[in-house]
Amino acid sequence: MGCPFGPGKFPSRRGLLGAAGGLLAAAGAARAASPDQLIAKGVNPAGQAQGRGDIIPFRGRHQAGIATPLQNHTFLAAFDIVSDKRADLVILLRKWTDAAERLSKGQTAEPLSPGLDHAAEDSGEAMGLAPARLTVTFGFGPGLFSRDGHDRFGLASHRPEALIDLPRFNGDQLVENRTGGDLSVQACADDPQVAFHAIRQLARLAYNIAEIRWTQTGFTANAAANDTPRNLMGFKDGTQNPAARPAAEDSGGAYTGSLDQVVWVGDDGPEWMRGGSYAVVRKIRMALEHWDRTDVAFQEEVIGRHKYSGAPIGKQSEFDALDLDRTDNDGNPIIAENAHVRLAAAETNDGAQILRRGYSYNDGTNITAERWPPWRQGMEYDAGLLFICYQRDPRTGFVKLFENMAKFDTLNQFTTHVGSGIFAVPRGVSPGEFIGQGLFG
Amino acid sequence: MGCPFGPGKFPSRRGLLGAAGGLLAAAGAARAASPDQLIAKGVNPAGQAQGRGDIIPFRGRHQAGIATPLQNHTFLAAFDIVSDKRADLVILLRKWTDAAERLSKGQTAEPLSPGLDHAAEDSGEAMGLAPARLTVTFGFGPGLFSRDGHDRFGLASHRPEALIDLPRFNGDQLVENRTGGDLSVQACADDPQVAFHAIRQLARLAYNIAEIRWTQTGFTANAAANDTPRNLMGFKDGTQNPAARPAAEDSGGAYTGSLDQVVWVGDDGPEWMRGGSYAVVRKIRMALEHWDRTDVAFQEEVIGRHKYSGAPIGKQSEFDALDLDRTDNDGNPIIAENAHVRLAAAETNDGAQILRRGYSYNDGTNITAERWPPWRQGMEYDAGLLFICYQRDPRTGFVKLFENMAKFDTLNQFTTHVGSGIFAVPRGVSPGEFIGQGLFG
Repeated sequence: MGCPFGPGKFPSRRGLLGAAGGLLAAAGAARAASPDQLIAKGVNPAGQAQGRGDIIPFRGRHQAGIATPLQNHTFLAAFDIVSDKRADLVILLRKWTDAAERLSKGQTAEPLSPGLDHAAEDSGEAMGLAPARLTVTFGFGPGLFSRDGHDRFGLASHRPEALIDLPRFNGDQLVENRTGGDLSVQACADDPQVAFHAIRQLARLAYNIAEIRWTQTGFTANAAANDTPRNLMGFKDGTQNPAARPAAEDSGGAYTGSLDQVVWVGDDGPEWMRGGSYAVVRKIRMALEHWDRTDVAFQEEVIGRHKYSGAPIGKQSEFDALDLDRTDNDGNPIIAENAHVRLAAAETNDGAQILRRGYSYNDGTNITAERWPPWRQGMEYDAGLLFICYQRDPRTGFVKLFENMAKFDTLNQFTTHVGSGIFAVPRGVSPGEFIGQGLFG
Repeated sequence: MGCPFGPGKFPSRRGLLGAAGGLLAAAGAARAASPDQLIAKGVNPAGQAQGRGDIIPFRGRHQAGIATPLQNHTFLAAFDIVSDKRADLVILLRKWTDAAERLSKGQTAEPLSPGLDHAAEDSGEAMGLAPARLTVTFGFGPGLFSRDGHDRFGLASHRPEALIDLPRFNGDQLVENRTGGDLSVQACADDPQVAFHAIRQLARLAYNIAEIRWTQTGFTANAAANDTPRNLMGFKDGTQNPAARPAAEDSGGAYTGSLDQVVWVGDDGPEWMRGGSYAVVRKIRMALEHWDRTDVAFQEEVIGRHKYSGAPIGKQSEFDALDLDRTDNDGNPIIAENAHVRLAAAETNDGAQILRRGYSYNDGTNITAERWPPWRQGMEYDAGLLFICYQRDPRTGFVKLFENMAKFDTLNQFTTHVGSGIFAVPRGVSPGEFIGQGLFG
């Protein structure tokens, strides 16, 4: 199928390698140059960064990539474990930990071994690139603890209560091969090639132990510092986020919790999760063609904010309080009952909060039917929000927030949840540890 | 199907708009603020750029986005014309020209009209963002001149000879909805949201005249200045490109043509093409999983260059001459007969050259069968090269170069061409002109 060379027309791989052996002898030094020799020549095969200011430390109390200021790009991968050996899993997590630390420094995933007659320990496309604030954040899905009732790795009794199976939400149209996963790796960097490179190296290190189940790219606009970036609907997105609000940790406001209150697992969790968090991921496709045809006033009504300023309806500034109780002279609410900001607000949800870490995604265009009159069909954008959020307990975080939103949020006519995942994100690693080590202790 | 609101459970759009009307009255000034008022407040709804250093002028002798140094991101769209009226086409090209010029300056696609009870003239997600060196480059596909033998717009006699229908190449596995198009728009910018925004506005302006046929995102690594970026195979890519070679226009080398020799149409073309070019686009998927499992020596053999230094096999430096005639002591060629660099070289192709403007693409992962033993099947990267090249005549440019490559290039086992397009790219526009105006004169 499609191979342009029929049998006999093209040398076998062995034949070509034989020829290469001959060339090696002929070509001499440059051909046989070891990585060390190349470094001596300044060729920099190890991808060692030139500048060091853009390195985010991999090790620490918390994993990087959660509270880290948003990088411009992400590549997220969920893996299925294909080995049934607990020892393989430990080998994988050790390798992944070492590689993630090296990659975060702008190094190759593993040291390159001498010689060229073997597959390289790194695919090479990040050589010479800066570390680009790469963070690699690991998560454990429900399937790591048990699958189909089977305790695959003797970990079932260690599954944290907070690592629930997500309920089916109203309107969910989840695609199986964009949903779930035993392990998750969120690579974020200011260079898309660096993020892709990181996932690719980790996937290679996982051969025969774990395989990619699904992946998703994401990006953010290059918004000016202190600007809340706009999402693809043209609205500022994340104003209520603990990290976006100015001086969130110092504000003392009723619903602007600190990261310790909102994100990090405390003494209520098992040791390996204390300082960790739980990630919920949703791939949310937006009906942008439809959205672009709607009046701005209607868009503002749906969101509950003014489009251009980002202020709550009827207010002046982005960070003005929502004041959801405001009514007009007839007693009708200023911010509609089913407006997005009302249903997403902490005060509507018993104070529930999450740390959002969303990226836009753009998967191009494909043929789709809109879900709203006049039900246009055609080539439409496959684009929207790669929603990632962190919280100390999804039951009181995302699930609490989203159950009502899934039913009542006016925005739902413009959005479809097509992918989903939930992962326990272990605490950060100390020197010498591997990720999630306490779980295997 | 999936709409979370049954009939009667959710207010109609009209009902909601009615409610919004009521709110408008209640909410007062902030709600009714016109774009001008918002600008006065510093809200900057027009997306007017703060800094001006990153604007690429839209008008000029050549269209921007061809010889412009590569921006970090592209979003490329091909459109089908759905109107049969020549006047509509002129309206569209006028609108596109005006919008592209505004967008290049970091402005909204059209001026925002007062009031909010209408769909906005701009979807808004680029507001507050810098122009990010946006370029918008327009092309005319064969279908603009005739389709199925039908002279749709009275332009058939003006179709340039050089705008051929591309032949079917050996190994082509073109997908229909990633191939062709009557019009092309290549948006490049240093911010992916700016590039996406541009295409989205142009698509909106085309309602009822033209529709998106296919799109593709692309990115480059943030390589250091003067570094040839590496592609996803980990090799430096584009070393032979006229723009990449140091002082290409001054070198006087036999096969390092100037842009006038290689890219721009001269007096041999019709007036509207003089200073224009021809674009050939190919979406080339790479079997990266397979590639990563091959020995580095084999990869170098396939490419004909050393992986880490980028030097031709047996040489020291990236920009050393290929010297394709070199042989070892047994008389065998140092660079294999079917190596990529040999087959792509100008000297192997009667001096044929093109200006490459390639981007990597990463569409995530999907289930694929490899085309090479052991024919692995599984979840593999849908990633590779969005190959774009410019030349003054595709017959002596891309077609000349690729016909042999498609048959003999060893790299073909790792690449599959899945999308394709050819477009006449008119010369740049002077003040007051619209793109391709001379064609309609």
